[in-house]
Amino acid sequence: MDINEKALELHKQWNGKLTTEAKSAVKTREDLSLAYTPGVAEPCKVIAKDPAAAYTYTMKANTVAVVSDGSAVLGLGNIGALAAMPVMEGKCVLFKEFADVNAVPIVLDTQDTDEIIRTVANIAPTFGGINLEDISAPRCFEIEEKLKSMLDIPVFHDDQHGTAIVVLAGIINGLRVTGKKKEDCRVVVNGAGSAGVAITKLLLTYGFKHVTMCDKLGIIGKDYPDLNWMQQKMTEVTNLENQTGTLADALRGADIFVGVSAPNIVSAEMVASMNKDAILFAMANPVPEIMPDVAKAAGAKVVGTGRSDFPNQVNNVIAFPGIFKGALEGHARQITEEMKLAAAKAIAGLVSDEELNEDFIMPEPFDPRVADVVSQAVKSHIEA
Amino acid sequence: MDINEKALELHKQWNGKLTTEAKSAVKTREDLSLAYTPGVAEPCKVIAKDPAAAYTYTMKANTVAVVSDGSAVLGLGNIGALAAMPVMEGKCVLFKEFADVNAVPIVLDTQDTDEIIRTVANIAPTFGGINLEDISAPRCFEIEEKLKSMLDIPVFHDDQHGTAIVVLAGIINGLRVTGKKKEDCRVVVNGAGSAGVAITKLLLTYGFKHVTMCDKLGIIGKDYPDLNWMQQKMTEVTNLENQTGTLADALRGADIFVGVSAPNIVSAEMVASMNKDAILFAMANPVPEIMPDVAKAAGAKVVGTGRSDFPNQVNNVIAFPGIFKGALEGHARQITEEMKLAAAKAIAGLVSDEELNEDFIMPEPFDPRVADVVSQAVKSHIEA
Repeated sequence: MDINEKALELHKQWNGKLTTEAKSAVKTREDLSLAYTPGVAEPCKVIAKDPAAAYTYTMKANTVAVVSDGSAVLGLGNIGALAAMPVMEGKCVLFKEFADVNAVPIVLDTQDTDEIIRTVANIAPTFGGINLEDISAPRCFEIEEKLKSMLDIPVFHDDQHGTAIVVLAGIINGLRVTGKKKEDCRVVVNGAGSAGVAITKLLLTYGFKHVTMCDKLGIIGKDYPDLNWMQQKMTEVTNLENQTGTLADALRGADIFVGVSAPNIVSAEMVASMNKDAILFAMANPVPEIMPDVAKAAGAKVVGTGRSDFPNQVNNVIAFPGIFKGALEGHARQITEEMKLAAAKAIAGLVSDEELNEDFIMPEPFDPRVADVVSQAVKSHIEA
Repeated sequence: MDINEKALELHKQWNGKLTTEAKSAVKTREDLSLAYTPGVAEPCKVIAKDPAAAYTYTMKANTVAVVSDGSAVLGLGNIGALAAMPVMEGKCVLFKEFADVNAVPIVLDTQDTDEIIRTVANIAPTFGGINLEDISAPRCFEIEEKLKSMLDIPVFHDDQHGTAIVVLAGIINGLRVTGKKKEDCRVVVNGAGSAGVAITKLLLTYGFKHVTMCDKLGIIGKDYPDLNWMQQKMTEVTNLENQTGTLADALRGADIFVGVSAPNIVSAEMVASMNKDAILFAMANPVPEIMPDVAKAAGAKVVGTGRSDFPNQVNNVIAFPGIFKGALEGHARQITEEMKLAAAKAIAGLVSDEELNEDFIMPEPFDPRVADVVSQAVKSHIEA
């Protein structure tokens, strides 16, 4: 049985990868009167007077909603709400297994932006945080921005920010390996969807000066046709020399390539045209923008992918469980840029100078320290 | 420590009465690739082609949403979404403990009827059923009716139908004890809110011919002021003689009283004016419409209340866990009137002729047979 057949068979056996379980067993009439009526009226009355007490008396304290409209699921595209359920359940499993955070999948029978915003806002009192997942760009940007401004709990689109945090962690350690300085590096991000935009933003926030975005037609600048509003906004802070041309043109003389795009679109020649000791994150999945051995042979120093069978895997599970763990424990109202930077640095910092080398820039996903270190980093940046 | 203090202290210790747990442990890279990417794509693809496969591969198969807007919580009234959370979590605990059904609380930051309907419809693909809870009348009627017509999963307002089913079960056994015949009985239901309306409807469906509803101003008839649309509708099928007067007038010569109203509003004189071997369900909580000993002394034969410290407790937990268990197992698209009748009869049938007496007309909530018997009754009435 190959992995796909085995996965399907297991999903059948599981019949749902998640269950709800009672902390308060109900075996006697007294149990019933404590966990339910009449005793339950007491915490209700306390919360009615002081809404913050919901964090003391209810599961809001440690529960996240994993919300998707099924419009951009894995590499499968717009498969809709119901078909997205296995992914959302899986995400909930990872929240639990990696950070002991309760998570509930919520898949939405609408792909209308305003309707999604209203629906999530309406169910928000239930949860301590909202993890948006697999929602297509540019809708995801508006949905996240509006929800962030409306809600008093953290809203975090993991495809954007989880990816950006882990990529930044990898790049930080790539710089350590190569001795490059962020101020001097030319960075090319290929793929101007949700992840590409978020990675670019976080790299700029971290202090990179020269970032160029590319998409299917090549370098993105003010004259690139049919940019969405977010890509338009990105032209104000990227490609400041207003370069035009192809991805190959962009890569000439670049130090860092970040691909969230398509298989095999970076050639050995392109890598050879980059600066010495180039750093590449080729995260198209399952087939990367360039295979690591080809990139290395062409002169790249550090190569990461999205795959677990190559070194330097960029895996969001390194970030999101700890991010929410910290945010929930600290009752954060937002996941701020400072928290994201702190999380990336914390992840990078888990690789010691002794361990660090071109094929080991990222802590293992199963490193038990990861979620705690990330959550501490987030917590230390919560404003009172 | 009294029960209220103890309940508050326990709720603090629990910090949420419910957790989510993974059925699919993720301890290795292979686990990760089976429960999450890349393996998870397989069930997604199958469901994209065949939506019914969601019942095979996801938790939709056995998960209910417990939805409230916090507008009519216990005896506390309109305390809002956040303060309703402990009750909704408690309900979810009961689903799990009594019928092994997964349940997730969803409290809503809106009390607008249309907005509630839209929100619940939007999140519905996630769940195998919707349990509406503690939503005020008459909004609850419209919300439930519209959702039932929109959705392909069961929608069930437990305050209405759970209560009605258990009351009917009690009345069925009350008839067994007293030898009364449903066709001949005069029934008075006091309290024309969500429970009163639902009880009245189910009693009519079961075959009672003479049901009169009362509310604060007495007998409800066509001239009763300020009836809502649902109460108006009820005047077409109740009080067919268009009697007017007080609750006392209604009770004169009645056989059965069902109170979902207010403490101490039925006097011994009123009970004495009822027919011989009267049956009373006085369910105002915690203080019933009349105390059982007073009613018995005045001539009542069978008296039930909402309290666990008197005989014949009407407790919804006898019905809703099994109702949803059966509906989920059978992939029912609706909870029909036939299912409700079957559930009530099944509950009543659990009390054998040997056990049956005026102080034992209802199975114990902790009787382990209850959920299975109810779920079988529901399943046997699912249409193909």
